Amino acid sequence: MEYKGVEVENVYCECTDLLTSRVLLTAISERVAIQEASFLSGFSVITAAPIQACIDRLAHPSETPDGRPGVMIQFNIPASRGGENFEKEISNRLFISPHLPTCSLFNATPKSQEKFKFSVGEKLRRWGDGFEVEDEAGGREVYRVPVMTGEMLVEKSFGVCKGTDAALEIFTEDQTSSIVAMERAANRIFNEVDGAAIFCFPLGGVVGAKVGGINYKNERLTVNHLYCPTIKDEVPDTKVPNNAKSAFEFPIVGLDEDAVKKGLRGAIDAIATTPGIKKITAPSFGGRWGGRKIFLNEALRI
Amino acid sequence: MEYKGVEVENVYCECTDLLTSRVLLTAISERVAIQEASFLSGFSVITAAPIQACIDRLAHPSETPDGRPGVMIQFNIPASRGGENFEKEISNRLFISPHLPTCSLFNATPKSQEKFKFSVGEKLRRWGDGFEVEDEAGGREVYRVPVMTGEMLVEKSFGVCKGTDAALEIFTEDQTSSIVAMERAANRIFNEVDGAAIFCFPLGGVVGAKVGGINYKNERLTVNHLYCPTIKDEVPDTKVPNNAKSAFEFPIVGLDEDAVKKGLRGAIDAIATTPGIKKITAPSFGGRWGGRKIFLNEALRI
Amino acid sequence: MEYKGVEVENVYCECTDLLTSRVLLTAISERVAIQEASFLSGFSVITAAPIQACIDRLAHPSETPDGRPGVMIQFNIPASRGGENFEKEISNRLFISPHLPTCSLFNATPKSQEKFKFSVGEKLRRWGDGFEVEDEAGGREVYRVPVMTGEMLVEKSFGVCKGTDAALEIFTEDQTSSIVAMERAANRIFNEVDGAAIFCFPLGGVVGAKVGGINYKNERLTVNHLYCPTIKDEVPDTKVPNNAKSAFEFPIVGLDEDAVKKGLRGAIDAIATTPGIKKITAPSFGGRWGGRKIFLNEALRI
Amino acid sequence: MEYKGVEVENVYCECTDLLTSRVLLTAISERVAIQEASFLSGFSVITAAPIQACIDRLAHPSETPDGRPGVMIQFNIPASRGGENFEKEISNRLFISPHLPTCSLFNATPKSQEKFKFSVGEKLRRWGDGFEVEDEAGGREVYRVPVMTGEMLVEKSFGVCKGTDAALEIFTEDQTSSIVAMERAANRIFNEVDGAAIFCFPLGGVVGAKVGGINYKNERLTVNHLYCPTIKDEVPDTKVPNNAKSAFEFPIVGLDEDAVKKGLRGAIDAIATTPGIKKITAPSFGGRWGGRKIFLNEALRI
Repeated sequence: MEYKGVEVENVYCECTDLLTSRVLLTAISERVAIQEASFLSGFSVITAAPIQACIDRLAHPSETPDGRPGVMIQFNIPASRGGENFEKEISNRLFISPHLPTCSLFNATPKSQEKFKFSVGEKLRRWGDGFEVEDEAGGREVYRVPVMTGEMLVEKSFGVCKGTDAALEIFTEDQTSSIVAMERAANRIFNEVDGAAIFCFPLGGVVGAKVGGINYKNERLTVNHLYCPTIKDEVPDTKVPNNAKSAFEFPIVGLDEDAVKKGLRGAIDAIATTPGIKKITAPSFGGRWGGRKIFLNEALRI
Repeated sequence: MEYKGVEVENVYCECTDLLTSRVLLTAISERVAIQEASFLSGFSVITAAPIQACIDRLAHPSETPDGRPGVMIQFNIPASRGGENFEKEISNRLFISPHLPTCSLFNATPKSQEKFKFSVGEKLRRWGDGFEVEDEAGGREVYRVPVMTGEMLVEKSFGVCKGTDAALEIFTEDQTSSIVAMERAANRIFNEVDGAAIFCFPLGGVVGAKVGGINYKNERLTVNHLYCPTIKDEVPDTKVPNNAKSAFEFPIVGLDEDAVKKGLRGAIDAIATTPGIKKITAPSFGGRWGGRKIFLNEALRI
Repeated sequence: MEYKGVEVENVYCECTDLLTSRVLLTAISERVAIQEASFLSGFSVITAAPIQACIDRLAHPSETPDGRPGVMIQFNIPASRGGENFEKEISNRLFISPHLPTCSLFNATPKSQEKFKFSVGEKLRRWGDGFEVEDEAGGREVYRVPVMTGEMLVEKSFGVCKGTDAALEIFTEDQTSSIVAMERAANRIFNEVDGAAIFCFPLGGVVGAKVGGINYKNERLTVNHLYCPTIKDEVPDTKVPNNAKSAFEFPIVGLDEDAVKKGLRGAIDAIATTPGIKKITAPSFGGRWGGRKIFLNEALRI
Repeated sequence: MEYKGVEVENVYCECTDLLTSRVLLTAISERVAIQEASFLSGFSVITAAPIQACIDRLAHPSETPDGRPGVMIQFNIPASRGGENFEKEISNRLFISPHLPTCSLFNATPKSQEKFKFSVGEKLRRWGDGFEVEDEAGGREVYRVPVMTGEMLVEKSFGVCKGTDAALEIFTEDQTSSIVAMERAANRIFNEVDGAAIFCFPLGGVVGAKVGGINYKNERLTVNHLYCPTIKDEVPDTKVPNNAKSAFEFPIVGLDEDAVKKGLRGAIDAIATTPGIKKITAPSFGGRWGGRKIFLNEALRI
């Protein structure tokens, strides 16, 4: 099929079940909040790190418990790894937040989607070494934990919901089209799709991989050679269009399938309207990544 | 003593021995290189993460093996944890780099300071699943590893040197002075001090901690209550000046003690010339952090 | 009166009538659109420049005629200078836009507020030297003007409405509070108040002035000595609070009085919740700036 | 000829004589200095504005009279317009600077190149309405002018030298290559070439024009139709390569011809190493722009 002049292959994204907790980080200014959310969500692709942390959107002062600007971050792991593992890994990651100047942390997982809660506040309050106090802020139960710049407010418990994910594969004219297209798609989701989140903010795109190797059998992860333009002449069953010299994967996570579909739709629109796009498709992992499917035409129809 | 009108307490910074490897990340543009270096060095304070990753400086195209703009990152762990552990943790962290669009990695540890080498290239080249090739770039032995956006060049081996660190403690009028002072100090080191590096780029400052707890004895890390303005009225032996409502720690790592001293000097100058600074000192951990000492007057004299 | 713990003096802002045209600039990416809108709106305070150009807000691809990201800019002059003068000055300013890579220009003045139209397209299309063509884009009549990077779309005519303005005066602890407070207020209006716009994006604040001089009688504009903390000891009738070492003016323009009121409210909230704010008031020009009044309590009540 | 795999046409840039004054703007932080320098240098292409203002480079605190971070800006007009006109226009432009929070202004024209001086301080000090004082800062004679955020330091007189300019014309695969190439060239000059400056910071590139029109004879400026990819099929004597869908002009100004040559060389290197570049040349205005010539091979050889 074609969308705004670009070929979109009607394949499906493989979606896996995630355990997801959306966390609101507020700070003294929007810029500081963005910098700290970026630091907190760095090094966070599940293939190399124990937990993923993806930037969802800005939270305006009118909607934050402390009236300061903030950023929402989706922390997630594959659901198959279990809730206990999730609690351990997110607690470990959030334990860096008392180091972040002026930051506070609140729950931002919608109540309606909450599967269970975990008490991150119980762990983080101990940073206060007995000087922390219980309080209330914007209707939330929080701890006021003394830190060097002032006080960190931490909500007592955070919700966890069943999130999911999906990824696009995009073939492009060259690296410049890849870079501009991923920037546009990332901005679209950050600005317009509540509940969908991106990696490596503000870049958004990452370079994909395949599970296992065809030559290096023992590797956990190698280049997705079927989709890699650089070696298309060496791969007989390559899926790379003739005229593509670059490609990138654009992964999206979301609080639910609906958010991911809206994210896919926004990303496809942003990418298709960037010059130099040769084809939009989705990587196939033969069901090894996720059992559920979102077809691209389905995503575009929402 | 006084420096540019601000009281500087002549105490010493506790410096620990580090194993440090400086890595050069290049990309299609300076902006993309900065974003990817930030992502790669996120979540990286040793108190919560297994390895530290600190931003050193821009590398101009005229000095990079592939003629593209780049950023230098110092990866480090306490030397006491051993070389084997360092190799494992830095390899694990760098394994996320094939996901970063258009990025390449080169050794940037000065030859003259090199203690040993490790072959990160051997691990990362396997991402190529047999399609990678050996080559030479700008006089370096590299692997050309096919990735989705094109090729990632990875130098075969990276040097490791004996790095070190230090931290300042700054008392300020309020959070706005803290934020502006840390931004200025971070910029100073990023722009002017080769070999010194900062955390949480581009913020630079972090909120300090103490080892252990006085009330929560089993905690590994808690608020440095003696230096914390928020609770100064509850701490009889507080070291917080009367007029300070905020404080922050400014940690620096470096390729050697000289780089750290130059970093301290630049940071002190940047901080002292920011409005609202009440006192500059260094946190004392009673020798539990590091055995070597840099007195602040020594740092200022360089 | 007090707002969130900060003294707000219940004086009035002097509002003058403006001729305002809101222009939408779109570009290949959000970042490029912001950079070009900043360039186009630089050097634009009416006290030194012939026309003001203030950044209103992002325009998302879903609301732009060409489906690309954009920024809305409010061009304005005092209404007393007349429509002819406005057309001349805005045409002159927009004549720089064919130099801006990938940019297009559309009318963004709401139809309901339009007082008259002017045909900027007629002037800008002539850049095409006869190679331009008439067309339609997203329901708008446009010219497709060939430029080096591709095509610039320019809507044929732009609406002009009766805008207005207002300014706050803020006394602060020191320059760091001033800088952080103006950044927060600017972000608030940029992100949350459609129809209100700020100067010197993304800084937002400017340093105020008074009309005329008390010592230099022939000067058109001099320091507002009554509000200037630096010389408070030399000015017997100073209005500067004892504890203030810095101050700044925060001017806002809007498509109508309602937008300006919402802007004032957002700015006051953002400023009042920044550390180090001593007092929020409004500069008085004794009616020499504008005849209409918005009292601060009125703005806060909206 | 070929440079790094890209065709470079060995034509000459037309260079005109400029009157140039380099001004150093310092502020409370590097970021604020950059934002204010951008505002001050907005709307500044000579084809639409009365004076050009181009960003040269960062000034580190170690080299500024007040020890604060800053940015150097080159103000310039064609020398043919005369020194009196230059003084009028730069004074007018700088008269906006008392509005810029925390900013100070110093002379940054090298003594060795100075042709004459003008006393901007005499005009700007009058903003102080008699409260300003004479002083010395970092060896410079300055006025301390009270402004709302504190004090603005203005050096008494600024030097003017004989500057010059040049422009490249670049044909590219599409708009994404254009945008990335101009960003890279701009960064190169900003970071590595002292004395050369760029327009529309941080974008750097602009879309070129020709003097006069072939169809619209009375226009002062129209599309450079011979170099415009969009209409190449309608222009029999087009100079656009077959495979180019986009183009851009990259203008450079400098304190002297040597700085411009180094700027050209850096820009060519940055552009040639960007993917999607089809050809690098220079626009010809048949001598109507400038009498002096820099051939591209000469620039590359420096």
